[in-house]
Amino acid sequence: MLKLSSFAAAAASAPAIGESASSTGAGRPIPRWDYIELCFAGPSTGNPFIDVHLSATFHHKNRSLTVEGFYDGDGAYKIRFMPDDVGNWTWTTSSNAPELDSKSGAFECVQPGEGNRGPVSVRDDYHFGYADGTPYVECGTTCYAWAFQAPETQRQTIDTLSHSPFNKLRMCIFPKWYEYNRKEPPMYPFPRSGDVNDYSHFNPAYFQHHDALILELRRVGVQADLILFHPYDKWGYQSMPPEVNIRYLRYVIARFSAFRNVWWSLANEYDLLKAKTNTDWDSYARTLTEYDAFGQLRSIHYSHHQYEYWRAWCSHAGVQDSRMTLAASWRADWRKPVIFDECKYEGDIPSRWGNLSGDEMTRRFWEATAQGAYCGHGETYLVPDQILWWSHGGVLHGSSPAKIAFLRKLLEETIAVGPGPIGFTNFEESPMSARRSNNAVIFYYFDLHQPAQWTFDLPQGKIYSSEYIDTQALTRTPISGDHSGKVELKLPGKPWGSVWFREKGI
Amino acid sequence: MLKLSSFAAAAASAPAIGESASSTGAGRPIPRWDYIELCFAGPSTGNPFIDVHLSATFHHKNRSLTVEGFYDGDGAYKIRFMPDDVGNWTWTTSSNAPELDSKSGAFECVQPGEGNRGPVSVRDDYHFGYADGTPYVECGTTCYAWAFQAPETQRQTIDTLSHSPFNKLRMCIFPKWYEYNRKEPPMYPFPRSGDVNDYSHFNPAYFQHHDALILELRRVGVQADLILFHPYDKWGYQSMPPEVNIRYLRYVIARFSAFRNVWWSLANEYDLLKAKTNTDWDSYARTLTEYDAFGQLRSIHYSHHQYEYWRAWCSHAGVQDSRMTLAASWRADWRKPVIFDECKYEGDIPSRWGNLSGDEMTRRFWEATAQGAYCGHGETYLVPDQILWWSHGGVLHGSSPAKIAFLRKLLEETIAVGPGPIGFTNFEESPMSARRSNNAVIFYYFDLHQPAQWTFDLPQGKIYSSEYIDTQALTRTPISGDHSGKVELKLPGKPWGSVWFREKGI
Repeated sequence: MLKLSSFAAAAASAPAIGESASSTGAGRPIPRWDYIELCFAGPSTGNPFIDVHLSATFHHKNRSLTVEGFYDGDGAYKIRFMPDDVGNWTWTTSSNAPELDSKSGAFECVQPGEGNRGPVSVRDDYHFGYADGTPYVECGTTCYAWAFQAPETQRQTIDTLSHSPFNKLRMCIFPKWYEYNRKEPPMYPFPRSGDVNDYSHFNPAYFQHHDALILELRRVGVQADLILFHPYDKWGYQSMPPEVNIRYLRYVIARFSAFRNVWWSLANEYDLLKAKTNTDWDSYARTLTEYDAFGQLRSIHYSHHQYEYWRAWCSHAGVQDSRMTLAASWRADWRKPVIFDECKYEGDIPSRWGNLSGDEMTRRFWEATAQGAYCGHGETYLVPDQILWWSHGGVLHGSSPAKIAFLRKLLEETIAVGPGPIGFTNFEESPMSARRSNNAVIFYYFDLHQPAQWTFDLPQGKIYSSEYIDTQALTRTPISGDHSGKVELKLPGKPWGSVWFREKGI
Repeated sequence: MLKLSSFAAAAASAPAIGESASSTGAGRPIPRWDYIELCFAGPSTGNPFIDVHLSATFHHKNRSLTVEGFYDGDGAYKIRFMPDDVGNWTWTTSSNAPELDSKSGAFECVQPGEGNRGPVSVRDDYHFGYADGTPYVECGTTCYAWAFQAPETQRQTIDTLSHSPFNKLRMCIFPKWYEYNRKEPPMYPFPRSGDVNDYSHFNPAYFQHHDALILELRRVGVQADLILFHPYDKWGYQSMPPEVNIRYLRYVIARFSAFRNVWWSLANEYDLLKAKTNTDWDSYARTLTEYDAFGQLRSIHYSHHQYEYWRAWCSHAGVQDSRMTLAASWRADWRKPVIFDECKYEGDIPSRWGNLSGDEMTRRFWEATAQGAYCGHGETYLVPDQILWWSHGGVLHGSSPAKIAFLRKLLEETIAVGPGPIGFTNFEESPMSARRSNNAVIFYYFDLHQPAQWTFDLPQGKIYSSEYIDTQALTRTPISGDHSGKVELKLPGKPWGSVWFREKGI
């Protein structure tokens, strides 16, 4: 199994094949939800990226799963596979290259190690959970172009993430050309000469670097929400020929899908990619569903024209919108988890999307949460080093991460399956309220409203303890007494309050 | 002319005819936009409210205006008239009662005294001005049921208003039955026996009290936005017979329309008055336009179903909505001033419409202002004496009035004709910006956004001074330098900022 403990080294070096399962299958046991990497020597003449087809079928009990392999340069062909159950697995390859065809082997899948909870999938319609059953309270941020920054910035990004509340990172596969992002990347995904891309070949080093980044995120418990296409481009990647787009997708699926922390985001602002039609997007979605044997989470992100998230290929909605109050109705319409992947960013840049206060960023997280949806963070402060977290990573400067951490802790403490809204909530109503489906936890969020008393309508026959939470000051104040049915409580008469009720004795 | 310097006395006493112009016209000169009250003795037998018709036509140069008179009890008939131009006016009465018919007289209208700027009307399509040309920066609040509170509370209300930024007060003609308003009024508008109203008679004392309240508001420079119908009723006034509604309207028009500070609001939450049809409302609107010879400002206020404010009888829109960002588009649609008469209230009561923070109330004023619209204040704090300003008047407890005063001062300092929006602004855009039509003043409001720098696009060929304003901390910080064209400024990187540019040398 490939272990890249230093992705900076990987980024700088030639392809590192390293330790891997042998092609005969006499390798080490593979922990469940880890991955095995089969590595074969094969043809290096001609164009291995196009000429050679390689796949392997993995068998376990009565199931078989087929994944594609990929050419990693220097005559090396690889197949990555994530076993999802313990026990004996066998595999057989298939290839049009005789030296890669009909190889077979076996390995044992064993219990996962600590910190390996498996991939995340949709749970209870609107929420997420790890494969081992642990709820996953989605809490995302963005470092869109961190893959193309200085190695020390990349290391810093991982360190920052490991001490942050964020457990999902949106990041681009392709380099980014945009405000604050006007430099050439250290490598290109395809061989490039002047302004001409050789789309018939991939640059394995480029993708090996992404391997390493994704695995570093995996190491610190962060989901890698991989953005497959985006419009912030000067190199041509937003308008490649159709067959190149599909080849590219199959290549990244073959490389990355066995990493348990991978999510697919077909695009950032898909509607700004003017060269692509809806039919094109359909073909990309089909490619994802066909070739990703592990069924990793899939979505797409828009600018102006909201994507039709009811479509079956989307596992969840990854919206760009600041109208947080629409979350509950969208959730009900689409019957899927709703993540506000982009609701603007905390920062102080002179772009309307990048100068929210930390308080406002926090408020948006609460507003989404109280509707059973999820919110996304990003940060755009004009710091002297010009390293803006939103795109470059590095360090965080804002006030919202600590407040978001407070919210995430509250949710993880008490909500096993994630909150769900009580009926319909909208901007005209206060407080918003959400509850765990078994009513074991019910919370109310007052947002900008500041009532000095409120009558809460709790389920009869259950007894609750309660606490008052100041969502901005980050204080938790127990409210004395046992509560049941209609409960009138005095409140501080300040905005940003939340009242949490927890069933006693469970 | 009737002068009620103590409205508490008026409320308690029998009809006070007092000093008035004589029926022969040999009275004192009347200041422009003040009013003359003609007082005649007439029939007191039968039912003077229904049996006797009285009107008078006033002539000045080539104009004549006809107003209805009203019976004020005890055999006294009155006609009130507000002359709108200086010079000699003559008048002649018409009545089916011989002793009231064909009376005539004359008076001289002279220049107004200090503080008398005339009635307010629409100016520059979207704004307001006094008849003497002074801009009127609308800044309203509500004391819906102040007419029915203890006399000392009424005195306190006037005192509070006279020290507040508020220059318009929404108030009900009929008593109010609602949360925090569950008591009988000291008087009824119609004679009442048990639960039965005698709609064939008015109670003059009731309306004399309103005369006095309106004149007290006039004394302290506050427009009386009279709410003619409302649904918070237990006495039957929301569902009177059709002919009673019209008789009532003609009676209040005859009594109040000559007071220069009167505005008409056909209803509060008209759509909650279930006994009334759209045709009914049309008939009331027609009555206002036909019988109010002075053309005082007219609007109506809704709960859920927005009124069609494009209708010709409405001089302006008096909306109830919290979606402040729709102001600019409504303004453009209706081509009329837009006032958010109700966007919820500062306070801490457990009703969703009554627990905004002072900061949020202030923010709503700024958001309306930056779109060339107007906002309304109200206050609902659960104070120990249970006197809530929103309905009862009394004293103010909140933090927004001082902040609203700050905004009003800024506007009055600099904007002669009121601000108008630059193109279309919406929730997605920041900053909102507004400008005086001649570009002499341009201001930007950043709301919750906190950019640390911004490029402003000022008109070429004009030179501006500028200042940074913290709309919540109420600080004004001059920005050095002369500005023209594209101007990049450093900003504090905090929310709630506003930058004002003023053309130099004007």
